[in-house]
Amino acid sequence: MKTVIKNVIVVTMNHKREIYNPGYLLFENDIIKAVGPMEELDKHDLLGASLVDGKQGILMPGMVNLHTHMGMIPFRGLGDDCKDRLRVFLIPMENKAMDEEMVYLSTRYAAGEMLLSGVTSVLDMYYYEEEAAKAMDEMGIRGIAGQTIMEEGACDFSDPYEAISYGERLIKKYQSHPRISGCIAPHGTSTCSSEVLKAAYEIDSSYQVPFTLHTAEMDYEMKYFEQEYSMTPAAYLDRIGVLGEDTLAAHCIHMTKEDLDLFKRKGARVAHCIGSNTKAAKGVAPVTEMIERDIPVGLGTDGPASGNTLDILTQMKLFADFHKNETKDRSVFPAETIVSLATIEGAKAMGLHLITGSLEPGKQADLVLIETLSANMFPVYDPYSALVYSANPSNVESVFVAGECLVKDKKLVKSNLEEIRKDLVEKMKQTDFRTHMTQDQ
Amino acid sequence: MKTVIKNVIVVTMNHKREIYNPGYLLFENDIIKAVGPMEELDKHDLLGASLVDGKQGILMPGMVNLHTHMGMIPFRGLGDDCKDRLRVFLIPMENKAMDEEMVYLSTRYAAGEMLLSGVTSVLDMYYYEEEAAKAMDEMGIRGIAGQTIMEEGACDFSDPYEAISYGERLIKKYQSHPRISGCIAPHGTSTCSSEVLKAAYEIDSSYQVPFTLHTAEMDYEMKYFEQEYSMTPAAYLDRIGVLGEDTLAAHCIHMTKEDLDLFKRKGARVAHCIGSNTKAAKGVAPVTEMIERDIPVGLGTDGPASGNTLDILTQMKLFADFHKNETKDRSVFPAETIVSLATIEGAKAMGLHLITGSLEPGKQADLVLIETLSANMFPVYDPYSALVYSANPSNVESVFVAGECLVKDKKLVKSNLEEIRKDLVEKMKQTDFRTHMTQDQ
Repeated sequence: MKTVIKNVIVVTMNHKREIYNPGYLLFENDIIKAVGPMEELDKHDLLGASLVDGKQGILMPGMVNLHTHMGMIPFRGLGDDCKDRLRVFLIPMENKAMDEEMVYLSTRYAAGEMLLSGVTSVLDMYYYEEEAAKAMDEMGIRGIAGQTIMEEGACDFSDPYEAISYGERLIKKYQSHPRISGCIAPHGTSTCSSEVLKAAYEIDSSYQVPFTLHTAEMDYEMKYFEQEYSMTPAAYLDRIGVLGEDTLAAHCIHMTKEDLDLFKRKGARVAHCIGSNTKAAKGVAPVTEMIERDIPVGLGTDGPASGNTLDILTQMKLFADFHKNETKDRSVFPAETIVSLATIEGAKAMGLHLITGSLEPGKQADLVLIETLSANMFPVYDPYSALVYSANPSNVESVFVAGECLVKDKKLVKSNLEEIRKDLVEKMKQTDFRTHMTQDQ
Repeated sequence: MKTVIKNVIVVTMNHKREIYNPGYLLFENDIIKAVGPMEELDKHDLLGASLVDGKQGILMPGMVNLHTHMGMIPFRGLGDDCKDRLRVFLIPMENKAMDEEMVYLSTRYAAGEMLLSGVTSVLDMYYYEEEAAKAMDEMGIRGIAGQTIMEEGACDFSDPYEAISYGERLIKKYQSHPRISGCIAPHGTSTCSSEVLKAAYEIDSSYQVPFTLHTAEMDYEMKYFEQEYSMTPAAYLDRIGVLGEDTLAAHCIHMTKEDLDLFKRKGARVAHCIGSNTKAAKGVAPVTEMIERDIPVGLGTDGPASGNTLDILTQMKLFADFHKNETKDRSVFPAETIVSLATIEGAKAMGLHLITGSLEPGKQADLVLIETLSANMFPVYDPYSALVYSANPSNVESVFVAGECLVKDKKLVKSNLEEIRKDLVEKMKQTDFRTHMTQDQ
């Protein structure tokens, strides 16, 4: 089945950063077959092809959300401005109310929200990740389900090694799936023992899936490593042998130049979560220095309890404003660079750049069409500028993952958001959740 | 004509910050008659009243945009990441292509965009402001048209005193208009002579309209006052006698403690433009210190060439993330405070707090209904959190200004965005604009 999307500004994000305006993209089944300027469209045999008129919208690669916690939709907006929110609200509720079904229902919702906002690839990190993988698969998104491990145990497993075994089974189960894979995602540098970190790293590396964990994010984490080891979390990861090409460190706010050099040397990658980090007053990660060193960096929203919304368009805007202001230079990180972080660079950090992140023949048809008819999208002199500084998630008109149309006319195609929400609300009412909600109101 | 909006979370922003959930609001013609919890609705005589079911949406006061340049829609997205954008792109194009018709057509577009995003009151500052006033009036928004004065002349007048006379005529023309007024808005502290600033201040004060100008925003401005007068722009405004209760200073990024004390003593107010300031790498204004001193502060988007989008929801989110991160405290500026800056505090800074900015009987029916059915708006534990951290302009369902429904089902009611854009595009094509657009692409 061939599909052509025509009359669009094609933002390819290929090596040459080619833009075709007006342009087209042709894909067959799940694979992109051609992209180019409109005048070259008639060189293709389009017999029987389905034609989509993009109406001068912007066709871009599906966006990549490198770090989130999809099971946490029920927590969104709870204690947002509370100093010790994690211990007051989140952990007690997680222990009381989180179970397999809640993870499944919440992940479905989160996948729907992301698809509607143009995210086509996501690295999730939470508990009961087999349920998350199932939900992502059903929703049609591309994703990695990261089974989180806590040394002290969590809502799913009291023993971290049981959780690791569950994670390895998950990896195996999805090894040959075209869109979904699993990985073991230790919670963080100080919330897992070195033994647990090493065990998880060994398994992730052997299957070549990301070893992802919270790194250099929290004040208490920095203090702990300073006091216990007189070193930084990054140096500690290296010392215990878990810093390598498969390591995808989330946050990395507090990084020394030596840490960054180490990341470069070891080939480690970074998931940068600007919205979550700044809302929590944790600081701005040194992304300029990461990019100077060619460390693969992409963008993450963090979970809905932290960053609230799960779209990458909002993160692009925040990225621009924070990093320009931080470096006192309005010309750094031009919009093109920021779009690359949201797409091809994010795909690189996730280990998926050979199959997604740019619009090039041979790659998967992971596509987002942004309409330019809404009030905020006029005029468009430069599509990168329009995407970073003007667009919001409601401008996402259509989304394809692996050639399957999942969003059309700004609505989910295979599933119904209202029903997904209804199931989640029912579940929330059945658990302790409702009590908590009422108390907190 | 009575209208009731029911089944909503009413965020009143009154002194007690009352919230009715579920609640209703009743207005008659342009005036709010009652707000309260749903169970009290039947105490009113609703015979013949029009009923709006808010479907558990959030009903909030119309938002206030304290600083923008509505005539600049044709410049949006042009040279966004260029170091000297103002001199390379904006001023030359302004001088070549800006005329009365362009201001009129662009202001119509900007008013439509703002209404669609929930802004009901705006302080505009640009050239040919009689056209802007006319456009705002026709669109139904509440606004102050600030005639900008440049010492060296601008696209409308080569002589600043002619521009001042035009401004005074504009003020007189709209003196008894229910929604629109005029004011004289000198461009900035260093781009007008002290004589021009004084002449403008005298007129604005005598009519009790805002004397608004760019203040303590630019590096060259700070350097100029240091070198010429060994003082800050704020101190200079005071020395020449133009700092008073009618002064609404836009930006105020570079303010000393003495400047802030001076603002407090004189009753001057601030339009804070966090998005524009940080995108341009100019820094974060000391809003904590302003609020500590009870200086009236509200939010502004700045013009579409600077801040790109004209909605206040985006500014609220940016405000939260920047000021929390700046003060290293996630609990400062809780969402409730940020919503107050966008509504009642903004109205105070604009001099309109007796008639708008909160949902209270006797005030104008300037209302915004935010739907909570879109993916990003679930769950709602705290409506303030939902507004600041989750909402985007596309969640604005309905908007009323002075009781007139201007947005319904997310669409303009009295006017058609497509036609407004078509007229503006035609005009842009007729002028030198198109040449510039092509060259810059």
